[in-house]
Amino acid sequence: MIAEIIAAGSEMLTPYRQDTNSLYLTEQLNDLGVQVAFKTIVGDNLEHLTGAARNAISRADIVIFSGGLGPTEDDLTREAAAAALGVEVRRDPSLLAEMYKRYAARKMVMPPNNAKQADVIEGATVLANANGSAPGQFLETTIGGYRKIVILLPGPPGELKPMFAQVVKPMLAAALPPQHLARRTLRMALIPESQVDARTAPIYKEFTDVETTILAGHGEIQLHFVASKTTLYEAQGRVDELTGLVEAEMEDAIFSSHGENLEEVVLLMMGLRHLTLAAAESCTGGLLASRLTAVPGSSRYFLGGAVVYSDALKTTFAGVPAELVATEGPVSEPVAKALAEGIRARTGASFGISITGIAGPTPGTGPDAEKPIGLVYIALADGSQTRVKELNLLGNRDRIRWWASQHALELIRVTLLESQAF
Amino acid sequence: MIAEIIAAGSEMLTPYRQDTNSLYLTEQLNDLGVQVAFKTIVGDNLEHLTGAARNAISRADIVIFSGGLGPTEDDLTREAAAAALGVEVRRDPSLLAEMYKRYAARKMVMPPNNAKQADVIEGATVLANANGSAPGQFLETTIGGYRKIVILLPGPPGELKPMFAQVVKPMLAAALPPQHLARRTLRMALIPESQVDARTAPIYKEFTDVETTILAGHGEIQLHFVASKTTLYEAQGRVDELTGLVEAEMEDAIFSSHGENLEEVVLLMMGLRHLTLAAAESCTGGLLASRLTAVPGSSRYFLGGAVVYSDALKTTFAGVPAELVATEGPVSEPVAKALAEGIRARTGASFGISITGIAGPTPGTGPDAEKPIGLVYIALADGSQTRVKELNLLGNRDRIRWWASQHALELIRVTLLESQAF
Repeated sequence: MIAEIIAAGSEMLTPYRQDTNSLYLTEQLNDLGVQVAFKTIVGDNLEHLTGAARNAISRADIVIFSGGLGPTEDDLTREAAAAALGVEVRRDPSLLAEMYKRYAARKMVMPPNNAKQADVIEGATVLANANGSAPGQFLETTIGGYRKIVILLPGPPGELKPMFAQVVKPMLAAALPPQHLARRTLRMALIPESQVDARTAPIYKEFTDVETTILAGHGEIQLHFVASKTTLYEAQGRVDELTGLVEAEMEDAIFSSHGENLEEVVLLMMGLRHLTLAAAESCTGGLLASRLTAVPGSSRYFLGGAVVYSDALKTTFAGVPAELVATEGPVSEPVAKALAEGIRARTGASFGISITGIAGPTPGTGPDAEKPIGLVYIALADGSQTRVKELNLLGNRDRIRWWASQHALELIRVTLLESQAF
Repeated sequence: MIAEIIAAGSEMLTPYRQDTNSLYLTEQLNDLGVQVAFKTIVGDNLEHLTGAARNAISRADIVIFSGGLGPTEDDLTREAAAAALGVEVRRDPSLLAEMYKRYAARKMVMPPNNAKQADVIEGATVLANANGSAPGQFLETTIGGYRKIVILLPGPPGELKPMFAQVVKPMLAAALPPQHLARRTLRMALIPESQVDARTAPIYKEFTDVETTILAGHGEIQLHFVASKTTLYEAQGRVDELTGLVEAEMEDAIFSSHGENLEEVVLLMMGLRHLTLAAAESCTGGLLASRLTAVPGSSRYFLGGAVVYSDALKTTFAGVPAELVATEGPVSEPVAKALAEGIRARTGASFGISITGIAGPTPGTGPDAEKPIGLVYIALADGSQTRVKELNLLGNRDRIRWWASQHALELIRVTLLESQAF
């Protein structure tokens, strides 16, 4: 049972915009045990769209269209799908009456174009749109002896997602053999993909009934496990068994196994131990604080801190002696240490974390002039001791800043894990 | 002349990954006067890939494959493209010799699988890959009386992009009628799309030879103009003429017309006037500072500031009287004003900007308990006066934080534009 997703809309054939609905739809279809085999993106052109629909109906069992259900001339999905199926569209009088009523209730006259949104493919069920004016459509039919399901959904994600979740998913579940899907995602920071694969492949390869995907990026490795069984109990059991074995192998490298991101895990760990954190950031310039404060409820454990981008502010906000900055350079182990200790003292937080480095593209100045781009020091002070890490990061400014913030979060996590004191 | 882009790779049919090469390729093809009419994403399955290749070759003039050129069993693009074209692949002996040599130079033995990367579609030109082991291929042929160009590119963006830019683009330019393309992007912040369209449509609709796209999102509207002519002079002239008329209509609402983002423009304006800036952020928690410091060279104009997430730090870092926070609540006009003035005084910057608000999902506490989620105050102090803006932002935590930072940047920009003092 394979599916094809067709995204209709000329804007997705420009360099500026991409189809994103298909990621959501793929996850939902996978939940039902359906794999997506093709995605097609096609413009607002009747011939192109009809051709794409014809191809899709011939090669896939389930075809889902997103977009092209609006009232304008460019909205052609209804006509194209009908033509590809070899049937007509019919204007649905009750749908039309409803549309007129909705406009009348707002004391507006319906533009004549809008009547088009009442066109329904012969044999299709109309799907109510709780968040917009374009109804969806669901059609189950037989073509050349093969059973086909064709679904038309509106393009805006705010309309498509609730319509799929509330209306289409139950209809598809009823039409398909029962499948129960269990998922787990294990996340690890700052560990090479090759190392994760070398250590975990011998384990997950034994689980031929669990689909494993490794994804790497942004200083993080994710292991996705998906099992599909006739009962949820069985699917969950297989995924949990594999998770247990991989967790035993990778030990503390795994920072989360239920989807939480690294900043959420760090805040959770601080919360459990009634600890607070403050940050002094130079090269990351607020990125670490911004990541932490993006987590709802973070204000209980993250007090704030300072963006000590200029040399003078390192003294003003974290009490780093100006001579130290002048002699060692702002990107140095002693300055990182003084920043972490200083921000902790100024804020009264349990932990002070600091980041100072050369993010590029231009090199440092003064004592930092000879230091390489990508050199970063992070320090974590807890009042009794201060850990400092020297990093040599690769890549451009954005990458260096991101990885520096990732290392800072991981340093906090590992310190909390190792320490018995907290 | 239309193109189709086929991205091959099963990982792009999961909920986790998307094809991104096609955005780059679309821009490059548009430069050559070629529109992309279809994008297809297909897994590592010979039957599926061959079918997709066959469809593409029949409906498009130029077909570009990305991915599937590696040495593994899953790398099937060569075979699929050849099958769809009805020709064979031949193992190229000189390519093979080169591959052996490359391995030998590193004192390694080439795995036998790798020989597959020397397979060349009959009639195709081999494209050297300066950044990886998989060569590309370029084939010009005639099918059923129609001229077709088929191009195979490696999937990793770091290999695909330089190969296209350096090798494929000149080959395509030579094969296609000469086209010169001029582009301009006008960007505006915090203005409704409907208003931009109502004011600019009467202008751009007159320029039927300039393609106009309006994109809205993240508190910004972009107007993209593209003209394609036989000379660059002519194309540039039309785009410039339209830009001039739209600039006259929208006046100061346009913050950039050469692609710069809002933070770059703000820093540029500060630089031109030898001004410096510091920020005190509560609800945005470092997001504004992080956006500013993401710009290379920002350290000259942005000194840094404080993330005053807890009430106490508003006093510690910006000297806001604790009684003021306790009586008015941290989300209030007087606190916003005191934060902006305080951070300016502490840092010695020309301007102090502050943001304080309720980002949700939980409401404020104490005096802020009754205030609505989305209430945000921003203040800008220049030493002689302090401007304060009250905002009522919609949406979730991420959106409220982003829009608050966008309003803060726009407040600085507008203040600098209006003021004669700087």
